[in-house]
Amino acid sequence: MRQTFDIKGGPQDGRTHLPLLRRQLERQGLDGLYVPHDDEYQNEYLPDANERLAWATGFTGSFGSAFVFLDTAVLFADGRYTLQAADQTDPALFEVVGIPDPGAFGWLAQQALKGKRVGYDARLMSPNDVAALAAAAAKAGAELVSVEENPIDAAWQDRPPQPMAKVVPHAVKHAGVAHTDKLEAVGAQLARDGADAAVLTSPASLAWAFNIRGGDVSCTPLPLGRAILNADGSAELFIDEEKTDAALRRHLGNRVTLRPLSKLDEGLKGLAGKTVSLDPDVASSWFFDELKAAGARVLRQRDPVAIPRACKNDAEIKGTTAAHARDGIALTRFLHWLDTAAQSGEVTEIEAVMKLEAFREELGSMTDLSFPSISGAGPHGALPHYRVSTASDRKLERGSLFLIDSGGQYLDGTTDVTRTVPIGEATDEMRANYTRVLKGHIALAAVRFPPGTTGTHLDVLARHALWQAGLDYQHGTGHGVGVYLGVHEGPHRIAKPWNAVPLMPGMIVSNEPGFYKAGEYGIRIENLQYVTPAEDILGGEIAMHGFECLTFAPLARDLIDIKMLSKDERKWVNDYHKRVMKVLGRKLDGEVKEWLKAACARI
Amino acid sequence: MRQTFDIKGGPQDGRTHLPLLRRQLERQGLDGLYVPHDDEYQNEYLPDANERLAWATGFTGSFGSAFVFLDTAVLFADGRYTLQAADQTDPALFEVVGIPDPGAFGWLAQQALKGKRVGYDARLMSPNDVAALAAAAAKAGAELVSVEENPIDAAWQDRPPQPMAKVVPHAVKHAGVAHTDKLEAVGAQLARDGADAAVLTSPASLAWAFNIRGGDVSCTPLPLGRAILNADGSAELFIDEEKTDAALRRHLGNRVTLRPLSKLDEGLKGLAGKTVSLDPDVASSWFFDELKAAGARVLRQRDPVAIPRACKNDAEIKGTTAAHARDGIALTRFLHWLDTAAQSGEVTEIEAVMKLEAFREELGSMTDLSFPSISGAGPHGALPHYRVSTASDRKLERGSLFLIDSGGQYLDGTTDVTRTVPIGEATDEMRANYTRVLKGHIALAAVRFPPGTTGTHLDVLARHALWQAGLDYQHGTGHGVGVYLGVHEGPHRIAKPWNAVPLMPGMIVSNEPGFYKAGEYGIRIENLQYVTPAEDILGGEIAMHGFECLTFAPLARDLIDIKMLSKDERKWVNDYHKRVMKVLGRKLDGEVKEWLKAACARI
Repeated sequence: MRQTFDIKGGPQDGRTHLPLLRRQLERQGLDGLYVPHDDEYQNEYLPDANERLAWATGFTGSFGSAFVFLDTAVLFADGRYTLQAADQTDPALFEVVGIPDPGAFGWLAQQALKGKRVGYDARLMSPNDVAALAAAAAKAGAELVSVEENPIDAAWQDRPPQPMAKVVPHAVKHAGVAHTDKLEAVGAQLARDGADAAVLTSPASLAWAFNIRGGDVSCTPLPLGRAILNADGSAELFIDEEKTDAALRRHLGNRVTLRPLSKLDEGLKGLAGKTVSLDPDVASSWFFDELKAAGARVLRQRDPVAIPRACKNDAEIKGTTAAHARDGIALTRFLHWLDTAAQSGEVTEIEAVMKLEAFREELGSMTDLSFPSISGAGPHGALPHYRVSTASDRKLERGSLFLIDSGGQYLDGTTDVTRTVPIGEATDEMRANYTRVLKGHIALAAVRFPPGTTGTHLDVLARHALWQAGLDYQHGTGHGVGVYLGVHEGPHRIAKPWNAVPLMPGMIVSNEPGFYKAGEYGIRIENLQYVTPAEDILGGEIAMHGFECLTFAPLARDLIDIKMLSKDERKWVNDYHKRVMKVLGRKLDGEVKEWLKAACARI
Repeated sequence: MRQTFDIKGGPQDGRTHLPLLRRQLERQGLDGLYVPHDDEYQNEYLPDANERLAWATGFTGSFGSAFVFLDTAVLFADGRYTLQAADQTDPALFEVVGIPDPGAFGWLAQQALKGKRVGYDARLMSPNDVAALAAAAAKAGAELVSVEENPIDAAWQDRPPQPMAKVVPHAVKHAGVAHTDKLEAVGAQLARDGADAAVLTSPASLAWAFNIRGGDVSCTPLPLGRAILNADGSAELFIDEEKTDAALRRHLGNRVTLRPLSKLDEGLKGLAGKTVSLDPDVASSWFFDELKAAGARVLRQRDPVAIPRACKNDAEIKGTTAAHARDGIALTRFLHWLDTAAQSGEVTEIEAVMKLEAFREELGSMTDLSFPSISGAGPHGALPHYRVSTASDRKLERGSLFLIDSGGQYLDGTTDVTRTVPIGEATDEMRANYTRVLKGHIALAAVRFPPGTTGTHLDVLARHALWQAGLDYQHGTGHGVGVYLGVHEGPHRIAKPWNAVPLMPGMIVSNEPGFYKAGEYGIRIENLQYVTPAEDILGGEIAMHGFECLTFAPLARDLIDIKMLSKDERKWVNDYHKRVMKVLGRKLDGEVKEWLKAACARI
């Protein structure tokens, strides 16, 4: 199994480690320390060695932070994690505070800490976060101290080693463009932007720019490392020597200098006098400090790789289309199983995850999950980020809905798909709400839009049918997705908060409206889709972008209230199911194929 | 007539005035001057005395700017004004450059002006604009000089006097809340925000906060002046003495000190040592400079009056509802006239404006137009901001569309409404596009939305039907509207550019999607509507805001392609027309009433 169902952490961790950490704070002359969840690479999935917040507190959620003082400690967690945070920490040691209202920095600003020295690790924080922390510390009267060595790293006796997975070339047949050509193009852009070089701090940007992949974290084939790209198309790539070999060296060629990660400081010092592009949204404060100290002029610009990486080329689209078609076979077998064997009411969430993983393994091409599956039966479906554990596991009971959000990593693509299915008979209310979510999904799938449109502009289309019924969902509508890279990837996004990045051809984005009835059921329908080039519409004046769907797997026809759909919406469902049959039908046979035919019959 | 149809300005103005201005620049030791269109009050409609750009160039558009140097001059105008700018200026004297691409500051940055001294008037520019100008000047190698006296004012020999219309109390029956209570409430908010005082620089904010109105500019009853509001609810109001009288003094009471505008400097100096709230979006750079020099600590915050002013109270909503009902009578009489007499094909745009103005005058309660009517026949309708002149006047020809966008100022409210009507027979294409615009209008009229939603979120609803057909319109969808105040009023707005202000109960906003076929016809449908309090929806979970319509006047039923409307959309049209009959029917009789009945019959 690739997914585990144990919950690590717990109050004992904080009880054991807090005294060690405090001793270290005293040693470093600190009265307190800010402990973010983020690691040096802004990873979504952390290597065990970087789970500093979990080590210090016992809290293992994927989002949160803490302030640890010599005599008190406060843990900050958002709505989805406040219960877990309370469960996993000793109330005698930690106060748990919700985010926002007022959030970690807001909380700090209200404390009386006159003369206290509060430490932070510049490697783990963006310059904006450091500025916000500094403002809060000033209000509290505290002195903010940038630590040389992270006190947690110093106190952590049995800290696991940093992961050392081999970094491997990513074939140009998958990448579509040779890394040398990419480096030339990005270098030319840097020159146009007035920069001599850029420091790439994001492993996803390294993976894309050098056509390499790694295995340092779960679910995403990231090579942890850094790079300096020069405007002339040459580059230095900093990666732990243990991860590299001759094959990698051959792949990189002679315009790329491979250097040990330990030489990064030296590399940055070499930028003295140069104008260097650095992205304040992805580079930590440490890089700004180092470059300034080195005598470089920093240009605060978006990571020059972010947009080229987001706009997938033809080979990437072709690859991920193929990966999605394979993934759809596994998902369809699973949906058939859900609609037959799992209708007993005796199957559990964990069993469902295992079954789905087995179907994906059968394909023979999956390298990893793209994220731990969300397998939510009944009321668990109403927790949008639910992760099943042996402690929480429950049966898919008859008369309930089951929500399954999952995806796989393949050499040619990354998938992410959510389906909601009835176990037994669904209520009219469930059907009405499923249909509202479907209407939103269709609106966002079928929309045509002019160049310059961003995800924030489109977001309401997915919510409109819910809003009219007094309903909404408290998460974004769509995130960017990589190709054999992160399942969550910027810079574009479809959500209420303002995102200024226009949706451009080749950008892959999820379309995943939902509805969550607390304590009862959850509904989400998610396909991935990519932006098509602007094309003329007959009788139109402006060439319009649209979306092409990548994900093919049947919708839950028993949950659709056909009366609530317009003629156009019904046509969309029928066209979609026709394509599902076309894409998947010839790879299936026997009972599953017959089942799929029935699932895709016209409504 | 309140609206005039002459075009002022023209090349002779620039020929005459440019030498005078250049002599003055030399006198002040300047090599150049930045000339924005804006005046000291960020007025939309300028007093003649403040038409500096028109004086210097001859260009009378409502938006633009210029750089005047000793030997060259460049005029910047946006798409709607580039032709007019070229017509009104002498090409031997002015180069006309489009905005954007790269815009006035972008243009400056690319010039070689090493050692040149370029002046600007801090009274006419926001601090952000000054910063952008400074950055551009630095790139060009120029030295930026804040002028003590505006060189145009010094060179302008026959400059008209500043307007001196009396400032009058605005009755509490219209305002709904006594100004003393408003000042208390705003003062208390200032205290909560950590400010000792706020400087109000916007005449609209003065009008609202002190329940006063003036007559210094056309179309908006603004009292030009400034104010200092204190956290204790007391205030100083700075207005030219000539505009004030004993009645105003009595109205203001003893917590408000009325002072001559010439004492403003003194008032600002009195803020030494205080924390003062000032809005960088509405206050000019001059105020920041003065307060800094006075030794005040400036808090950059939104004008504390902006949100309370935008959220109309019950009395204001009641008043403007009544004003709209009266205005609808005038408009309906006009629409009847358009549908009968004006079908001859012999009526001109100016005659239509005069007819409509006469119908509004007949009401007896109009104090002014709320803006110069846009009266666009045939291809002129395709210019969204068209203003008819004797030179451009054309007939409402048979087989064309006529677009009329107009509004009135009344003591109890401000109106703004657009209707598009066929003259003779419309084509199928016109009908299809009218129906697409109508679908967008309906979507934005009928939407329910959760608290926190901003205009940017909703904008796409009005465009969706057009986008699907490859069409769009190049202007915002909705602007805020005052009550016997500006017809364009922030801080909320419905448009593509990000606006972070949530739509809150009582905010009035226009709903005006359109479609413009260059050289052929224009379509716009505009009603005003206001945000209703969040209310539960049966079966819903989240209380949702909605919109209540203010404008009642029949739509052009002959332009509606009924087949293109959904059942819900048809119901919306029928419900709307039923309300039109209810609101207007009893005030009309005879032929016009019969006509309205037919116009409002079910579709």
